[in-house]
Amino acid sequence: MNRLEALQRLKAALGPAGFLDAPADVAPYLRETRDYYVGACDAVVRPASVAEVAETVRLCAAAKLPLVPQGGNTGRQGGAVPDGGILLSTTRLNRIREVDAANLTLTAEAGCVLATIQAAAAEAGCLFPLSLAAEGSCQIGGNIASNAGGLQVVRYGNTRDLVLGLEVVLPDGRIWDGLRALRKDNTGYDLKHLFIGSEGTLGVITAAVLKLYPAPETIVTALVAAPSLEALFEVFAAVRDVCGEALTAFEMMPRIALEFVLAHAQGAVDPFSAPHAFYGLVELSSPIPEADLRSPLEKVLARRHGDGILADAVIADSVAQRNRLWALREAVPDAQKPEGVSIKHDVSVPVSRIVGFVRQASDAVEREIPGVRVVAFGHMGDGNVHFNLTQPAGWPAEDFMAQWARMNRIVHDIVEEFGGSISAEHGIGRRKKDELLLYKTPVEIELMRAVKKAIDPANLMNPGKVIDV
Amino acid sequence: MNRLEALQRLKAALGPAGFLDAPADVAPYLRETRDYYVGACDAVVRPASVAEVAETVRLCAAAKLPLVPQGGNTGRQGGAVPDGGILLSTTRLNRIREVDAANLTLTAEAGCVLATIQAAAAEAGCLFPLSLAAEGSCQIGGNIASNAGGLQVVRYGNTRDLVLGLEVVLPDGRIWDGLRALRKDNTGYDLKHLFIGSEGTLGVITAAVLKLYPAPETIVTALVAAPSLEALFEVFAAVRDVCGEALTAFEMMPRIALEFVLAHAQGAVDPFSAPHAFYGLVELSSPIPEADLRSPLEKVLARRHGDGILADAVIADSVAQRNRLWALREAVPDAQKPEGVSIKHDVSVPVSRIVGFVRQASDAVEREIPGVRVVAFGHMGDGNVHFNLTQPAGWPAEDFMAQWARMNRIVHDIVEEFGGSISAEHGIGRRKKDELLLYKTPVEIELMRAVKKAIDPANLMNPGKVIDV
Repeated sequence: MNRLEALQRLKAALGPAGFLDAPADVAPYLRETRDYYVGACDAVVRPASVAEVAETVRLCAAAKLPLVPQGGNTGRQGGAVPDGGILLSTTRLNRIREVDAANLTLTAEAGCVLATIQAAAAEAGCLFPLSLAAEGSCQIGGNIASNAGGLQVVRYGNTRDLVLGLEVVLPDGRIWDGLRALRKDNTGYDLKHLFIGSEGTLGVITAAVLKLYPAPETIVTALVAAPSLEALFEVFAAVRDVCGEALTAFEMMPRIALEFVLAHAQGAVDPFSAPHAFYGLVELSSPIPEADLRSPLEKVLARRHGDGILADAVIADSVAQRNRLWALREAVPDAQKPEGVSIKHDVSVPVSRIVGFVRQASDAVEREIPGVRVVAFGHMGDGNVHFNLTQPAGWPAEDFMAQWARMNRIVHDIVEEFGGSISAEHGIGRRKKDELLLYKTPVEIELMRAVKKAIDPANLMNPGKVIDV
Repeated sequence: MNRLEALQRLKAALGPAGFLDAPADVAPYLRETRDYYVGACDAVVRPASVAEVAETVRLCAAAKLPLVPQGGNTGRQGGAVPDGGILLSTTRLNRIREVDAANLTLTAEAGCVLATIQAAAAEAGCLFPLSLAAEGSCQIGGNIASNAGGLQVVRYGNTRDLVLGLEVVLPDGRIWDGLRALRKDNTGYDLKHLFIGSEGTLGVITAAVLKLYPAPETIVTALVAAPSLEALFEVFAAVRDVCGEALTAFEMMPRIALEFVLAHAQGAVDPFSAPHAFYGLVELSSPIPEADLRSPLEKVLARRHGDGILADAVIADSVAQRNRLWALREAVPDAQKPEGVSIKHDVSVPVSRIVGFVRQASDAVEREIPGVRVVAFGHMGDGNVHFNLTQPAGWPAEDFMAQWARMNRIVHDIVEEFGGSISAEHGIGRRKKDELLLYKTPVEIELMRAVKKAIDPANLMNPGKVIDV
């Protein structure tokens, strides 16, 4: 089948709501949010059922048309930006198929928006714990394809850990029904983990069985202030070791991040009377209504305050106060923008090595670019640092952005030295594909290629992303 | 290279402690614990380093010698029993390479005995939560290769969920160093999940980075009694929904299991004054020293007692009493033996469907074999039922065992109908290889074969197990 014929048959099969090829209709699907990439495609298809996805994939395979799956298009690495071929939007695959509160599972189609799933879980008295900045527009299929992280990983794990079963349309159009809702299943290779985090390069995820948790009834939120990152880490470790799984989040911010927020985020107020070097946003929670999480937290904090490790702390006394504390943390990414452009790194290291990593990487970049402003914030609880470099005041933006590759090399080399990952939660996509080759061993690259060739021998699924074969 | 030459080179490379071929030396490696299978091999090798494993695998590959990895040889499915070729015992790969308490990780070689790892974690003030009957002799490499389950899955997940990184010798002898100790790493396909649960058919796992947890400081253990399985499930769901991750175990036992234990286990005493249809062993724990887990449990139980759902309950007041309650549950498998032979099923269903499954499957087998004694016990918290059928009193053992295949078919068909798994935690090995073909879709079987061919194209790694290519 030639491409033109395939396009005509796609148009006929999917109908007007399912097939877009007018440039104005297609345009929004081709740009990622930060405009780093603008793609091109022959058409956008919007299948409304798994059967329509399968038909799309079969036609693409027959005509050797590349296929790029796209969810809410909120990815950071250009993984959903096409370079020709067909863009398959999962937007119309948006049914929640089942909520089974007694099994603590929810079965959702790929196009369900994350916030919709959170709400459906809450309505059933449960929690779906995946939580991230884009939750109002990102789709669960994209979350799964990119193994999204977010704010509660220290307790609930990444998206991978929240998936029990998958339904996937394979690169030849066959449907793999792996929608099992089981906590234990040792019947051969665990295929779902191949597709989770594969960024659409091995097939189109069309639905998933997700794990729910009992809804939290008791929540304690605090902002702690420490004289150094070392001290903040000590506070974190002490809280984690005492509170265990009650620790839902531990987010770190350096003083400069809070200063940016205080300068640029509407209504932001410093909760402390003096400035401190580092801050940690702590959240504890439990489904036990009468759980006393505040006393153990206060005890841990009081002891570290006595030792001079903790400078100050505020524990939220109301939901409004909790929201104000969270707002400080959540405002960090946007508050960097008025300060100029930033070169960003989404990296992780073993939790025990965060302090050493941030110190060594900060020293290295400050040596290279005097005046660069290191905004190293993020998820201390899981070793994930957003190591962002905001331009020195007064530099032309282009001059600073021209340093991107050089800064990447410096930072990623140090990540490697610390046994870390050059992409903690944002994935590889297009952006880090070449970096991957630098930091993975040849054996691992060859294994990845062997997997890709085994599942997608024609290389039609999201080609040019993650890894070339 | 021919086989004889390969054997000579293996002998030279591994030395006397690393190479056994005298029949008496080899024999213990060829029998699994229940003597269901007795295998054969050309030699047993016992490499003491990853380099020696790699050399072994390279020589086997060159001579096309099949290679069967074996840990503590405690598996239930004949997965480590060879059928010719080389048996590779991981016993001498027994170093704990690192304990990083601040990262909550422990790096262990494949031959470390599970109990040794538990002890090393405890010594560092942490918990390694994998816990199962064979923990005194099974090895972590085997636990990982078979994705072992056990007693605390409801809280901590299966072995798969406890592994952050792996080191694997691939079927051609290359070493994949995937020993990352990271909570977040989105750099391409997650290869470790391919090897976890693959039962040695894709490579030899030589070491792993394991997740630790803060050690529990507060533990509450109770035995609850219910008038029916429905009622027991209601108690379970209520405890789980209130206590959340504090729920570490919820083990179910029917009256007949307790009767077997009372009859055959030394010192076993019924904690209740009257018999009850079903029992649940509940354990809650928290690292918070002053955590009050007893009050919420008592509150949940009191309410269900008022509703007539809970018949009776005892909460352990001492470590000795807790151990006595656990001993009742742990004695169940052995207590079946004096009652005659049993046909066993290690199956799972969605947690919400346990009651329906046990009822339907019990009715079906009792209809087929009047007088058969259904001992359906196990891990209610994760939907895993050990659906064991003890022979009717007075039958010749052989007559009952001749029903094995017929009973399997009846029970597994019902498992399938309930969306369950025919092997919840014991794996496939040799025993369930044919069953797998009956219950997996052709698409899934083809995907599994594609993976096997991609990683082990010569089919030398544990051939004849899990899946044939």
